[in-house]
Amino acid sequence: MTRTALPVILDGDPGLDDAIAWLLALASPELDVLGFTAVHGNVDLGKTLWNTGVVLSLARREVLYYAGADRPLVRSGLSAANVHGQTGLPAEFLPEAEQTPEEQHAVNFIGRTVRARPGEVTLIATGPLTTLALAFRIAPDLPELVREVVWMGGSTGQGNRTPAAEFNALADPHAAKIVFESGVKLRMVGLNVTMGCIATPERVKALQNLGNAAGQVSAEMLSAYAEVYRQRYGLNGGALHDPLAVAAVIQPELLEWQAMRVDVETQEGLNFGRTVCDLYGGTQHANARVAVGVNDAAFFELLLQRLARLP
Amino acid sequence: MTRTALPVILDGDPGLDDAIAWLLALASPELDVLGFTAVHGNVDLGKTLWNTGVVLSLARREVLYYAGADRPLVRSGLSAANVHGQTGLPAEFLPEAEQTPEEQHAVNFIGRTVRARPGEVTLIATGPLTTLALAFRIAPDLPELVREVVWMGGSTGQGNRTPAAEFNALADPHAAKIVFESGVKLRMVGLNVTMGCIATPERVKALQNLGNAAGQVSAEMLSAYAEVYRQRYGLNGGALHDPLAVAAVIQPELLEWQAMRVDVETQEGLNFGRTVCDLYGGTQHANARVAVGVNDAAFFELLLQRLARLP
Amino acid sequence: MTRTALPVILDGDPGLDDAIAWLLALASPELDVLGFTAVHGNVDLGKTLWNTGVVLSLARREVLYYAGADRPLVRSGLSAANVHGQTGLPAEFLPEAEQTPEEQHAVNFIGRTVRARPGEVTLIATGPLTTLALAFRIAPDLPELVREVVWMGGSTGQGNRTPAAEFNALADPHAAKIVFESGVKLRMVGLNVTMGCIATPERVKALQNLGNAAGQVSAEMLSAYAEVYRQRYGLNGGALHDPLAVAAVIQPELLEWQAMRVDVETQEGLNFGRTVCDLYGGTQHANARVAVGVNDAAFFELLLQRLARLP
Amino acid sequence: MTRTALPVILDGDPGLDDAIAWLLALASPELDVLGFTAVHGNVDLGKTLWNTGVVLSLARREVLYYAGADRPLVRSGLSAANVHGQTGLPAEFLPEAEQTPEEQHAVNFIGRTVRARPGEVTLIATGPLTTLALAFRIAPDLPELVREVVWMGGSTGQGNRTPAAEFNALADPHAAKIVFESGVKLRMVGLNVTMGCIATPERVKALQNLGNAAGQVSAEMLSAYAEVYRQRYGLNGGALHDPLAVAAVIQPELLEWQAMRVDVETQEGLNFGRTVCDLYGGTQHANARVAVGVNDAAFFELLLQRLARLP
Repeated sequence: MTRTALPVILDGDPGLDDAIAWLLALASPELDVLGFTAVHGNVDLGKTLWNTGVVLSLARREVLYYAGADRPLVRSGLSAANVHGQTGLPAEFLPEAEQTPEEQHAVNFIGRTVRARPGEVTLIATGPLTTLALAFRIAPDLPELVREVVWMGGSTGQGNRTPAAEFNALADPHAAKIVFESGVKLRMVGLNVTMGCIATPERVKALQNLGNAAGQVSAEMLSAYAEVYRQRYGLNGGALHDPLAVAAVIQPELLEWQAMRVDVETQEGLNFGRTVCDLYGGTQHANARVAVGVNDAAFFELLLQRLARLP
Repeated sequence: MTRTALPVILDGDPGLDDAIAWLLALASPELDVLGFTAVHGNVDLGKTLWNTGVVLSLARREVLYYAGADRPLVRSGLSAANVHGQTGLPAEFLPEAEQTPEEQHAVNFIGRTVRARPGEVTLIATGPLTTLALAFRIAPDLPELVREVVWMGGSTGQGNRTPAAEFNALADPHAAKIVFESGVKLRMVGLNVTMGCIATPERVKALQNLGNAAGQVSAEMLSAYAEVYRQRYGLNGGALHDPLAVAAVIQPELLEWQAMRVDVETQEGLNFGRTVCDLYGGTQHANARVAVGVNDAAFFELLLQRLARLP
Repeated sequence: MTRTALPVILDGDPGLDDAIAWLLALASPELDVLGFTAVHGNVDLGKTLWNTGVVLSLARREVLYYAGADRPLVRSGLSAANVHGQTGLPAEFLPEAEQTPEEQHAVNFIGRTVRARPGEVTLIATGPLTTLALAFRIAPDLPELVREVVWMGGSTGQGNRTPAAEFNALADPHAAKIVFESGVKLRMVGLNVTMGCIATPERVKALQNLGNAAGQVSAEMLSAYAEVYRQRYGLNGGALHDPLAVAAVIQPELLEWQAMRVDVETQEGLNFGRTVCDLYGGTQHANARVAVGVNDAAFFELLLQRLARLP
Repeated sequence: MTRTALPVILDGDPGLDDAIAWLLALASPELDVLGFTAVHGNVDLGKTLWNTGVVLSLARREVLYYAGADRPLVRSGLSAANVHGQTGLPAEFLPEAEQTPEEQHAVNFIGRTVRARPGEVTLIATGPLTTLALAFRIAPDLPELVREVVWMGGSTGQGNRTPAAEFNALADPHAAKIVFESGVKLRMVGLNVTMGCIATPERVKALQNLGNAAGQVSAEMLSAYAEVYRQRYGLNGGALHDPLAVAAVIQPELLEWQAMRVDVETQEGLNFGRTVCDLYGGTQHANARVAVGVNDAAFFELLLQRLARLP
């Protein structure tokens, strides 16, 4: 870890692409990972918490981790087990979680950590935003103490879970609305860019050829995932959603950013959970910088190089 | 305080009728008041917190009190300063708050207290349910550890803040939905009964004649309040909303109860914040017992007798 | 028919209480029935149209009748066959419809008739308001040419089809909204009064004792209907919803009226189709006079006397 | 007019691009224009009706035209006078309307005409769909008697009037929902393609150089319009929305089509009026063919050649 490493908390719901994102974070000297917070989402909290431990075992690292929200704020729970498999990590040979989670609630960990280093801590969120929303509501001054939230979620265009909504947004639209309206400095990495970052068979092979556990498991999980993307979207592999959000912190220049207003639809119905992005609205009422382009090749190169560093 | 006194936490937004409700609680040996938690609502959190201290000064009591949520979960803030005055306590000669609030957040106080006495603690809520909702989301096992929530809010019929919605429900419909769907044992004391408990000029006079500070201040505040009720509803005085919820814990038989399903409207629009009470739906899906009748005379008798005990 | 008889068009979805309402109208010299328009609702349009003919046969009268809307404006169709039976008229021995409906669409009949007698024609609607809404949208000047719309529908309190909504309102909330916002002079006879007009066993017996076909069939249908009301509402018979709307035209003084604002909820969800009645809002923005009380005994007396006149 | 010309009715709200679209239709031998029906929209019905006559004067043609709906079905009226100017046709020297509109309502004209030639008549709609929706509700068999509806409206991506909704859809979302769910054969030409058809200064010049009135006026109006597009979207001229829908009937191969499900958001809020296009949902539940690509150069070539034929 370098002296100038950026202190980050990783909040997510592993989930196979969260797992790869977190391996990328653990392998990157630019980031000082202060802790992980698991949240409901792709699978239930019990599993995302266990999977957090599995990721640490894969990386042979010890980092504190915490349980966050076990369900959405207002809506009923939504699961993506159809995409991520029953356990969330569809790989045959996974290490056990060796480390156990902390007792403290993620909300308190986030609050305490951010307050201890005002203006310094970046929150990288790759799941539903429930835990962050709870933290912001209990400590209303937190949004201005956080350095930045970088979120994989939403879309400027099509959704995936519904034609209108991306999964992480739909899994807790009210939480997303709270975070987007909190005044926190915010970057959004949505489907409009992540669907352009595909784990093609060649890339899966390259991960496998890394020869280490991280590469092996990532390749296996992405293979399992690919079929869904082929059938549903006609794409040549699964999308690397969450890793792109971590990459956006390590190398922001990998993406093209546009400041704009983003509102989240909380009325139930056709557009429930949609991130309404005002592409033409100018920056006057902007509350986020949204990724609108990505250098896919450079991103994958980064991912590959970093995972190669893991044991 | 008697040995068998019921341990209660009082959560509210004083607000003049919250203040009278809390005086009633402090004056009643049946209740063991473990603490107060102030929430945004009739006026802002800074004022409801200060007013909590004022109530303690009025009663010459020392009880721990805590700041809860300073804004609704999802919706924008709503104030009732038009009814309760700018400070929330429209009386000329009020004591200062002598005691200061605790540092700990109300959410943590509630969680800790309920867990320490599983199945024993009753939460009497007389404001928006934001703090309770946050507590339930952060500690999902809390609803089954609470003895009961008794809430002044909602209505089986007409609203007051809008034709459809009662103020406490409208001030945080999402929080109300969370609490009503939490599985917690719940009683609702809504406008349909509280609008039948009017502080007529005779009753205001009786309060004044008590001769103590509590009676004096209550009488003054209810006089200020009466004009709104005369003009808007054609009633002969202000309604004693919140004290009725405290009375419902002291003497449940003052009210008639019916088990039913209550859902809270969170779609914005005409019915935003309405409590939809299924009067004819039977008890199969019931999630609350709702007050559908009240012995108004006996209730006011109780209030008068108890306030008389205060210094 | 007296010289001063009020020209009316009866729009409804018979349906057993529509049928009794229409018999009441045909038997009342105060009304000059210009025509009937059948609409989707309790049962489908084919059946409500047929049943219109059956009512005429029962009364041995010839009046022109027309098919109106066969489905709601925007929402999907709703049926009340569970209450009204598969045919809408749950009686064993019914006459055939002898007269056939006119070719012209009800919308055009209404438009033409109202324009021919500006300010004179009252529309008595006892079903979903789809046909009236279509007529008003195609001829935007119609609302001010109509003498009055009197509608059985909505409620100031509880609904029947859902806890929030009355059937006729829920069956086409968008149409109801159009009519309530059209500027037409409007009276609403809702569940809050009609649920107080019960066809008790004694009253059913009195109808049967009339000895004519109208009394016989009414008695039989109300008996079939009673069971639903006993089980669901604990009432001693079925409610005489639609006949009360006709009575409100014949003898307005049977009911107590209050001018108020009524809005119709068109957002889907818990309150879809609810008529939001602003009981305390004053008359400034009033768009309807709403029945808030009824002389039940006098109403039934009227019904009985009038049905006695039929053959 | 050739023998095989396609019988069409043109329904729209001129509006400058409707006007150009209608000139294109009148100039194209492939189309047999049976009539025009004007609807509320860009400006009010009085103006769109007058402007219909102006278009006929410009083309020196006589075609029957009719007034349709003067307001949206359910929502309140929306105007685009900010884009189209107060009259809807921002040109200095316009001919008077010489022909007067027919007495009959557009709804009846459409019904009568379609029934007279079952399966033959194409409806080209370039405004809010109110009139078509009314026609379909009054005559429920009409959708299957119409050959096809081709509509300029909606978007698979960004809106224009709001970030979520295109103007014609937003101006009457309920009507659009009725038409999309009617079962009628339907093609949608939305912003996602029309925003790619820009009247650049070169193109405006080419129109002007046609030397006839149609070219002159089109050029003038598109110049007036260009400024809005430059400021709001950074585009080099105004978009040729409505003419593309007419071109789509003349030469369908100018566009790329994809069958998909399209739902229209009628819940009020952020996404009110949005056409939710299920790009990845397959064709099983498809209710429309949606333009997803356009040969912009060929389209403009067509427009230019055809307008050149006008006097």
